[in-house]
Amino acid sequence: MTQPTAAMLVIGDEILSGRTRDSNMYHLAGRLTERGINLCEVRVVSDDAEAITGAVKALSGAYDHVFTSGGIGPTHDDITADCIAAAFGVHIDVRDDARALLQAHYDRQGTEFNAARQRMARIPDGATLIENPVSVAPGFTMENVHVMAGVPAVFQAMVESILPTLTGGAPLISRTRRIDRGEGDIAGPLGELAQAYPALSIGSYPFQKDGRYGANIVLRGTDAALLDEAMAKLDAAFPA
Amino acid sequence: MTQPTAAMLVIGDEILSGRTRDSNMYHLAGRLTERGINLCEVRVVSDDAEAITGAVKALSGAYDHVFTSGGIGPTHDDITADCIAAAFGVHIDVRDDARALLQAHYDRQGTEFNAARQRMARIPDGATLIENPVSVAPGFTMENVHVMAGVPAVFQAMVESILPTLTGGAPLISRTRRIDRGEGDIAGPLGELAQAYPALSIGSYPFQKDGRYGANIVLRGTDAALLDEAMAKLDAAFPA
Repeated sequence: MTQPTAAMLVIGDEILSGRTRDSNMYHLAGRLTERGINLCEVRVVSDDAEAITGAVKALSGAYDHVFTSGGIGPTHDDITADCIAAAFGVHIDVRDDARALLQAHYDRQGTEFNAARQRMARIPDGATLIENPVSVAPGFTMENVHVMAGVPAVFQAMVESILPTLTGGAPLISRTRRIDRGEGDIAGPLGELAQAYPALSIGSYPFQKDGRYGANIVLRGTDAALLDEAMAKLDAAFPA
Repeated sequence: MTQPTAAMLVIGDEILSGRTRDSNMYHLAGRLTERGINLCEVRVVSDDAEAITGAVKALSGAYDHVFTSGGIGPTHDDITADCIAAAFGVHIDVRDDARALLQAHYDRQGTEFNAARQRMARIPDGATLIENPVSVAPGFTMENVHVMAGVPAVFQAMVESILPTLTGGAPLISRTRRIDRGEGDIAGPLGELAQAYPALSIGSYPFQKDGRYGANIVLRGTDAALLDEAMAKLDAAFPA
């Protein structure tokens, strides 16, 4: 059950102020699970150089992959690329390959490739570009950190550009069973099941609906036969 | 513009696996902004003792307040209370005041107050209970860490129990202006505006709609007159 580990870093004041409800975390979490990559931690920080640089250092040292979202546009609050360069101690400037991509794009559109737009071609030395089929301005991979845009359509497209290049582990399979009883009634037998199947991750997610209590029990693992066996025991303990 | 600082810690495999889309972060972010408390960082970690304890220590040392969500129910994967006790080096056991609340609740319902349900009365020494008007089982405040349930209805009720007891700063006011031009056209004048008004936080949040580009420009600060002045300059630079 060895899977590569990953963390996500969401960069943006708009999430922390409650202005925007994050959707990139939810999207990435689902795609990584399908790919067999274990998302272990997410951090959300503001558009602050020290906060971004500190989080990049901590996460890139602790996990196999780090995925960032946000802060790579042309405006003054887009400082992610510079923070990545600072975190890895490398030089950053407008790079020829990124500039050429953007120049061709704006030439086709008849739009001026002004100083602000050239900021989007600032790429740290040693990074590899991530293709952006939506709006051209590329993301990049610096060592184990994949730097992507915050706009959901662009973020999602960049995720699809990068995912096929990463080695995943065995995909995690999950089985869900809804039990319409309070968690306090479920907890005893469920705890015994969790002890009997240490290779599975067993979670209980309680809900309340129309004044009644229940829980979705989720069994996760990479071995389908083992999951079926454990699920049969759960069914026996809580007949429908 | 001094506001208390805060962090949130979301505890739960279901967010990291992409099974559940978080809503507690979005809710808390909005309520803290209204209250004049500056949410600076969010972390999401799995139901893992080391990850939870480490994050609690880091965040409670760095911010005025920490709000946690998840992991305080009766099942085997509910380990938050024990992790908080470990993080602060205090004893934890079933506490009389919490047990009495729950005992009365289950007596009224005619439900057995079994061993699993008694787990929800485990409260670290020195903590203060947080009222739960939805389902009784309390949260608690341990030093500067406010420990709440993950079920959104319960989380939201606990937030309303705790917020009035916290001292907020001047509420952050925000003004938003939508500009239907690419960020590359907006960036130059916007950067000058940001330099001219260092007391304001000025963000640009790009969007793409029906194949056209635009951005919502958000000005945030505690001084309404200053915000109006800056917004007038933005309007002058980008007439509707």
